[in-house]
Amino acid sequence: MALMRSWVGSANSATCDFPLNNLALGVFSVGAEEPRCGVAIGDRIVDVAALEEAGLLDLPGGPLLDVPFWNELMEAGPEAWAAFRARMVELLAEGADPGPLLPHLYAQADAEMHLPFLVSEYTDFYAGRNHAFNVGTMFRGPDNALPPNWLHMPIGYNGRASSIVVSGTEVRRPLGQLKPPQAERPYFGACKRFDFELEMGAIVGQASDGPVSVAEADAMIFGYVLLNDWSARDIQAWEYQPLGPFQAKATATTIGPWIVMAAALQPFRVAGPAREVELLPYLREPGPMLYDIALEVALTPEGGAESVISRTNYREMYYSSAQQLAHHTSSGCPMNVGDLLGSGTISGPVRESRGSLLELSWGGKEPLELASGGVRNFLEDGDTLTLRGVAQGPGYRIGFGECSGKVVAAMALPDWAK
Amino acid sequence: MALMRSWVGSANSATCDFPLNNLALGVFSVGAEEPRCGVAIGDRIVDVAALEEAGLLDLPGGPLLDVPFWNELMEAGPEAWAAFRARMVELLAEGADPGPLLPHLYAQADAEMHLPFLVSEYTDFYAGRNHAFNVGTMFRGPDNALPPNWLHMPIGYNGRASSIVVSGTEVRRPLGQLKPPQAERPYFGACKRFDFELEMGAIVGQASDGPVSVAEADAMIFGYVLLNDWSARDIQAWEYQPLGPFQAKATATTIGPWIVMAAALQPFRVAGPAREVELLPYLREPGPMLYDIALEVALTPEGGAESVISRTNYREMYYSSAQQLAHHTSSGCPMNVGDLLGSGTISGPVRESRGSLLELSWGGKEPLELASGGVRNFLEDGDTLTLRGVAQGPGYRIGFGECSGKVVAAMALPDWAK
Repeated sequence: MALMRSWVGSANSATCDFPLNNLALGVFSVGAEEPRCGVAIGDRIVDVAALEEAGLLDLPGGPLLDVPFWNELMEAGPEAWAAFRARMVELLAEGADPGPLLPHLYAQADAEMHLPFLVSEYTDFYAGRNHAFNVGTMFRGPDNALPPNWLHMPIGYNGRASSIVVSGTEVRRPLGQLKPPQAERPYFGACKRFDFELEMGAIVGQASDGPVSVAEADAMIFGYVLLNDWSARDIQAWEYQPLGPFQAKATATTIGPWIVMAAALQPFRVAGPAREVELLPYLREPGPMLYDIALEVALTPEGGAESVISRTNYREMYYSSAQQLAHHTSSGCPMNVGDLLGSGTISGPVRESRGSLLELSWGGKEPLELASGGVRNFLEDGDTLTLRGVAQGPGYRIGFGECSGKVVAAMALPDWAK
Repeated sequence: MALMRSWVGSANSATCDFPLNNLALGVFSVGAEEPRCGVAIGDRIVDVAALEEAGLLDLPGGPLLDVPFWNELMEAGPEAWAAFRARMVELLAEGADPGPLLPHLYAQADAEMHLPFLVSEYTDFYAGRNHAFNVGTMFRGPDNALPPNWLHMPIGYNGRASSIVVSGTEVRRPLGQLKPPQAERPYFGACKRFDFELEMGAIVGQASDGPVSVAEADAMIFGYVLLNDWSARDIQAWEYQPLGPFQAKATATTIGPWIVMAAALQPFRVAGPAREVELLPYLREPGPMLYDIALEVALTPEGGAESVISRTNYREMYYSSAQQLAHHTSSGCPMNVGDLLGSGTISGPVRESRGSLLELSWGGKEPLELASGGVRNFLEDGDTLTLRGVAQGPGYRIGFGECSGKVVAAMALPDWAK
């Protein structure tokens, strides 16, 4: 696959996240106007809701874009997804007449981005081997690092859909019940070990009401977003046994503003790792199910300069989103359009590729030096955390934009909590 | 509080679940008609959607009942809840003119019941001390039965809203990944230890986006339903470490068809137990937060007679729904109208009061003899499990109806899972 050229010049740059090959989906507003569906092209956004209304984008089962979220296109199914992409290519390719579209093009720089879809339910996995090994080593030692079930199934837990926010939303340091290891009793106060987790989110675009195969699951996935699973490590340490993380993960999960459709990622498919133990048939992959997506994490202190603190790749995952979704349905659990599956933290094999501060600072024992000065064990108030992701093709790339959030100070303790 | 008499004669019986004091809310249909909101009175249902349409039920912010779920009344807030109840009492009290309502009364026996509300998200707790102690003893021995955090916070985990079904829905025995204790490797197959859990569900009727006190949480709770948290114990045993139950609880959770509003339960408030360790201020109760609700579980084998296998009471809980909701918001987790909180399994102190077969048969080691003949360690295909709940007043009772589900055989293993 080579660059598909567009009459929108900025889309043809080798370093642009949004060439015609991508056609990432967002929901945007400009000034006081209402949020609406838009497609990224170069440094512009096409108002596709307006195109549909103007009769330039006639989708099977439409109108599908007269709402400020992409769920209706998802619901319409894979044929509609393909028809949508084909028509957008017709409209935006080099040689097409820009005239009808020009009134519907906006600068990304002028746009405010909103949640690109209605999140039905949210599940987070623990499916990166390096992350699971690192965290397991810190909590249980290297000999018992991986739980006995880990190599046999993608471990996951249900998260809280209400906590999903779009890139740019400030994230308030949570309050919670905390018990320092040496303390005899817990207390209620502000989290002291607030962390990020670098993940990809897979968006379920078709419903199911019984077990599905990995191949079927793969076909149900509409697209991917960057995802930061903010984590209160001290709340988590005290609460998570025996039923898993709860309030430690419920403050916020930030997703990127741009959905990259699975179709745009097809040239970047890569196989999963060699299996240390053979997977059961229901989890075996019919083909390469991961993607080669380079990822980076940047931390910018309040008023300071950005430091890139991690570089890794989505292909480091042990289980793909398709395997996770297949496992998710194995009990008959009904899945719905708009369900979001977090990949789990994506850590590479070396320190510089770890996907959380818990790992980067090894639980606070090896403070991380920032290139721009200062050190971090965990996030400080005023820190902005930014995720980026790019699938690199020959002369073009498929980018995810930025998934960013700034940590703000905890609220004062309410009187009833004192 | 005494019986409030109604011109619907069956509502005045001391053994009827639905006197005028109750006014339980459901969604019903008769024959091929569309589902609509109804209120139980005696052995009848009042079609309140029709009353509202006919101008007999004028609610603040209405219409609120022109949809087949109760979420819009919840959203309208506590004043609308009170106005609704007051108007229903006017219409149905002894002495009121039955004429205008008679065309809108249906026999419960003729009605099919549907999910009474749209479940936004579902959280399940582990907040019954006897249950936690019993299960902990089986898994870790009596000395380590209660996890260290248990007496300090209501332990909970996020469940799967998509799996909530209404009473009467058949429940298919799940497939899943299983590893018998002696086996070297897991396999994929039908659950062999399928169980129920007797719980109450609290319905969140008002949204929040920051921490709330126990008193505020109590005021946010719209009402309660019976809840059966079907559990695949063998799937759970293998999957639940370290991140908690996932597929073991995702097949189905059955709720009763009738929402009993919190207002109807006020005469039955009782205080929680003495605290073994002092609770942190944010979890302390401003008053009695539990309810005296007698509960029973009946098991009916295919073609056989019913045996009551457990009798217990909601007042056995260690943490109330208000405390659970307050804790749920502590991290800033946004709560929404229609969120459902499972109480956790409600086991009493003696064997006959245990709220799950895991406890009743002590993990299969002490088979439970059914009064109607036969024994059970776990549920068998064809078993129907029925929960009932009643708050007993002087000469009347507030009942929840029945929450029932029949276990049907697992599906055949799909080819791709062999």
